[in-house]
Amino acid sequence: MTETPTAPVPLRWVGPIRVSGNAVTGEIEVPLATYESPLWPSVRRGARITRLVDDGLRTTVVDERMSRSVLFETTGAEHALRVSLELADRMHEAREVVSSTSRFARLIDVHHQIAGDLLFVRFEFSTGDASGHNMATLASDRLMGWMLETWPDLAYESISGNYCSDKKATAVNGILGRGKNVVTQMRIPRAVVEKQLRSTPEAIARLNTRKNLVGTILAGGLRSANAHYANMLLAYYLATGQDAANIVEGSQGITQAEVRDGDLEFSCTLPNVIVGSVGNGKGLGFVEENLDRLGCREDREPGANARRLAALAAASVWCGELSLLAAQTNPGELMAAHVKFER
Amino acid sequence: MTETPTAPVPLRWVGPIRVSGNAVTGEIEVPLATYESPLWPSVRRGARITRLVDDGLRTTVVDERMSRSVLFETTGAEHALRVSLELADRMHEAREVVSSTSRFARLIDVHHQIAGDLLFVRFEFSTGDASGHNMATLASDRLMGWMLETWPDLAYESISGNYCSDKKATAVNGILGRGKNVVTQMRIPRAVVEKQLRSTPEAIARLNTRKNLVGTILAGGLRSANAHYANMLLAYYLATGQDAANIVEGSQGITQAEVRDGDLEFSCTLPNVIVGSVGNGKGLGFVEENLDRLGCREDREPGANARRLAALAAASVWCGELSLLAAQTNPGELMAAHVKFER
Amino acid sequence: MTETPTAPVPLRWVGPIRVSGNAVTGEIEVPLATYESPLWPSVRRGARITRLVDDGLRTTVVDERMSRSVLFETTGAEHALRVSLELADRMHEAREVVSSTSRFARLIDVHHQIAGDLLFVRFEFSTGDASGHNMATLASDRLMGWMLETWPDLAYESISGNYCSDKKATAVNGILGRGKNVVTQMRIPRAVVEKQLRSTPEAIARLNTRKNLVGTILAGGLRSANAHYANMLLAYYLATGQDAANIVEGSQGITQAEVRDGDLEFSCTLPNVIVGSVGNGKGLGFVEENLDRLGCREDREPGANARRLAALAAASVWCGELSLLAAQTNPGELMAAHVKFER
Amino acid sequence: MTETPTAPVPLRWVGPIRVSGNAVTGEIEVPLATYESPLWPSVRRGARITRLVDDGLRTTVVDERMSRSVLFETTGAEHALRVSLELADRMHEAREVVSSTSRFARLIDVHHQIAGDLLFVRFEFSTGDASGHNMATLASDRLMGWMLETWPDLAYESISGNYCSDKKATAVNGILGRGKNVVTQMRIPRAVVEKQLRSTPEAIARLNTRKNLVGTILAGGLRSANAHYANMLLAYYLATGQDAANIVEGSQGITQAEVRDGDLEFSCTLPNVIVGSVGNGKGLGFVEENLDRLGCREDREPGANARRLAALAAASVWCGELSLLAAQTNPGELMAAHVKFER
Repeated sequence: MTETPTAPVPLRWVGPIRVSGNAVTGEIEVPLATYESPLWPSVRRGARITRLVDDGLRTTVVDERMSRSVLFETTGAEHALRVSLELADRMHEAREVVSSTSRFARLIDVHHQIAGDLLFVRFEFSTGDASGHNMATLASDRLMGWMLETWPDLAYESISGNYCSDKKATAVNGILGRGKNVVTQMRIPRAVVEKQLRSTPEAIARLNTRKNLVGTILAGGLRSANAHYANMLLAYYLATGQDAANIVEGSQGITQAEVRDGDLEFSCTLPNVIVGSVGNGKGLGFVEENLDRLGCREDREPGANARRLAALAAASVWCGELSLLAAQTNPGELMAAHVKFER
Repeated sequence: MTETPTAPVPLRWVGPIRVSGNAVTGEIEVPLATYESPLWPSVRRGARITRLVDDGLRTTVVDERMSRSVLFETTGAEHALRVSLELADRMHEAREVVSSTSRFARLIDVHHQIAGDLLFVRFEFSTGDASGHNMATLASDRLMGWMLETWPDLAYESISGNYCSDKKATAVNGILGRGKNVVTQMRIPRAVVEKQLRSTPEAIARLNTRKNLVGTILAGGLRSANAHYANMLLAYYLATGQDAANIVEGSQGITQAEVRDGDLEFSCTLPNVIVGSVGNGKGLGFVEENLDRLGCREDREPGANARRLAALAAASVWCGELSLLAAQTNPGELMAAHVKFER
Repeated sequence: MTETPTAPVPLRWVGPIRVSGNAVTGEIEVPLATYESPLWPSVRRGARITRLVDDGLRTTVVDERMSRSVLFETTGAEHALRVSLELADRMHEAREVVSSTSRFARLIDVHHQIAGDLLFVRFEFSTGDASGHNMATLASDRLMGWMLETWPDLAYESISGNYCSDKKATAVNGILGRGKNVVTQMRIPRAVVEKQLRSTPEAIARLNTRKNLVGTILAGGLRSANAHYANMLLAYYLATGQDAANIVEGSQGITQAEVRDGDLEFSCTLPNVIVGSVGNGKGLGFVEENLDRLGCREDREPGANARRLAALAAASVWCGELSLLAAQTNPGELMAAHVKFER
Repeated sequence: MTETPTAPVPLRWVGPIRVSGNAVTGEIEVPLATYESPLWPSVRRGARITRLVDDGLRTTVVDERMSRSVLFETTGAEHALRVSLELADRMHEAREVVSSTSRFARLIDVHHQIAGDLLFVRFEFSTGDASGHNMATLASDRLMGWMLETWPDLAYESISGNYCSDKKATAVNGILGRGKNVVTQMRIPRAVVEKQLRSTPEAIARLNTRKNLVGTILAGGLRSANAHYANMLLAYYLATGQDAANIVEGSQGITQAEVRDGDLEFSCTLPNVIVGSVGNGKGLGFVEENLDRLGCREDREPGANARRLAALAAASVWCGELSLLAAQTNPGELMAAHVKFER
């Protein structure tokens, strides 16, 4: 029995998607690696629709940061409070500690939680074109050392206190930010909805409210209201060498659909797209090739390639989300598609 | 520019893990496909520990089912209530509808939610050795047709109402069940903790309470209390041809650690391990090979191969979880490991 | 300084509300005790609207139960699994244990959770006209004793394991049921919306989607999508001698608003209305008087008075919810109301 | 039948509680109004324990603010992003708008969320000695007017977008803050635990982990890990004229219990204690009397009376929480207490 050295996940390029916005403008194909073959035609159908509207899919990166929360034991809440206040006064020192760890890491914000005598400090960094997991861990390691020296009554408890939070279903990432926060939106003309999606703006808007909003709330969903963001993100992350376990928080996004002047206003908000164009996993040959073809290895200011990569991830999600929702407005269509594409 | 036909994710076999329980007993290596190379030595360290205790890792599959919720519009809550009560009286008919769709699908339970005039019906199936996404969709499609005939005042709204719920951060899956519910646990002798993990039972138990329990709660976590289940599940799912986006609900599990008689009682509870040894994605050559090597393609009663596969997934998670927690009890160890294994 | 023997919370009777359904039909005034005086005119406005439509507010009690989860330590998950399976086979014995504790308590369902070697058993009871906290505790106390005798390897850990769950923000109560599950709904003619609420069906439906659904999801809400259910429930609970801390789970309900044929379909779904017409707190003179006036001390089959009480609680919520949402569609109206009614 | 003008909720003064910290130091009795009479002896038992330790209950107010989120429709996410960035640059203007509405209201921070073309802006205020609901609404009303003038392309959607969030089970309040954030903690000598609570430090710590942490997580709890904070808060709020529906978010706090050097370290963290010593509901005679007796109507700097009031609320919670947890470590004790105090 010989050892298989890789898991070669089937990959297809789909699109192009027509996008415009503050991170990428143009018509770009996206690579999706998946064992679930119906995903490709689903995204393809959405991509086709983006090309039927002048500006295509409007895609906006509204925030970017990577976080790591460290955990200290203090002598009590009053001590924890004092440290947190003094830390706020010494942010310039903290920033210097971070800058010394990397050319790209910058400390942009700090939040904390005090519970009993525990002090959780959530450091938030900009990390250039890297997704930033390791850069954040290294910087936090140094920050922790600096804090233990500065406030000797603190005791080390953990380099990660789960208030980060990495690859877990939590609320903090959507509220304080982690990864790229990307909004994609398009006004789809009624005729396009009817012809391309065999549905209506009214049916899609109503289904979105009843299924993605009400249905997810009934399921006890957490900052989540969508049909299947996780599918597109996984396929895109695998194709581009990302740490794909970050689809856990990536799956927590919100689809909105409203009828406006008879047309369909359809948007996907993804607060936690965690991708990088450099860093761990990006040295593999096929990954480099895919990033090149996406135009995410160009000579740009630090961060611009990663924002482009994130915007295209979100655009892929929008295409697949629209397509599945439209299919579900018609009895039997989803089942027929699975039969067709998987057998 | 030629199209890359696959994303070949690096894969290593790790272990063997010594396991015992109602789904698998023996010493078995597990395949992990990941871009995050520090994962392999982390799981390897945990696996080594399982081999130092007689029964190894006690692993129990406590439940299994696959779910799909359909969505109807009714004429009002009183109507929805009447349908739900009558459906409960006609479960034998519903079971027949399901059995006619597959040799393996069996309807085992039904839950519902009424919100305004919406009726969400969550069908729960046993699906043999398949993870059962498609089997559940097909059966639900037929159940929906039968219900629309039986109660003509119902109106189709969606084949999926998100009360299923698939690949989303929700509470319903842990409470009502989805996938295999697996508990892994072991009493680790103090000497083993000290020598193999360079830590103590007290330090690991305390860190688990403060980080995985309290820290995740502070982060607004949902039915989740662990350090990084998603990492191991993703790697195992990719290596065995699973629909890896199911790590979203898979990540929602609970790590418990207590000091008992000076030793460390350490358990991982994973309510939503969604895997199959047959079905979509399993026809790829390397997947078949990996499933064979795992012993999950043997001639067993329906479901037994999938339970074995699930138990080994959970065992892999236990190994990686223990190892990371232990590392985080020591300042600097996590950073050093990343530097060592990624550079 | 003399001790004040009560906190006399100001109370007004509001309405009548016109209701119809499986628990109460007629025009009934409701008592609301609150320090927040704007609540009265708010509910009064909603009540007026119910009287402008023939059937008034359609109100359906779709479920009722009271729960208590006990907690055992087992020798491991395999043991916990075995006990849970054997318990399912001995439900008739468990039912007898319960019936021996009260004329009214009946065991209607059991759910469990296994986490490591912990076994949480959630008993669900019907409790006649009592809200049932104490009846459930007493019955669970006896059930626990019976279980500890029947399975001697079990160990007592707690009479409450928080999987009940009482007065906490959790998902389990909405999914498995706790208290009365009540749906209230009405089709409000456009002319009524415009004249009585100075708004439009479109504006209210849109605001509900954006604020109660999307806004609450962004806030990290849990099974909650409403503007202020807690306010009406608190006032009604205080006026009728209820354990008003149960507004915590009571606040977790869903408001839906859709435009249908130009009119407004508006519903409130409250899965956890926890009220009783007898039991603790009901012996106070003013409480008895208020329950009498509500018609909830009549000679009816056990449970009917409590269902009537719950239906009227939910009806009060609907009235206040509609009124506030309508007010918020108009800039400045909320502020003006507060200024008018509080100063 | 005459109308009852109040709901006179039974009230008892309990204590005194010995407290020390940044908001209150001394021995103070607290008033609790409730229909659940076992609450009084429960808090009384906890209070007695605080008087057995020199510093008593260490109580720290770590944050205070009141929030209101307004909701705008924008022309798209890029527009929403631009407004949020420009608002950050014009905070001094926003602060002036707020200061003009009240002598006490101060704008201390702003957070926002962008979802599709919706912009939620969460204003955070200090509000002196008032709980601040109305002060925040008035200030937000003016801020909204100023923003609509400053950015004419914005459209009013709602004075409250539920990202506030008021009286709902959400995560945002714990993460961004709402009300007083209070930590109470005490090291209880083993002998005291054994004699006064008939338990052990080990039993209470273990129960807390298994019930309040693990059990609540299994129940799908949200930022909540306690036995019954809602009970004590409700009783204290009613006795002091507070808007008691705020126990919904008040119930979301965390109890921690650890064995330290053989003693019990026991803390309660309550991030959302929403109380005021002036404002709506405080003009009632008995409320004024109760606030006087609590020492919360003294001549202090603005905010100091409200912080004292919040610290004593949290202290009451600690007393009742400890007492109930201890009782649950002993089989039958809870049931016996209910029988004794309610019959």
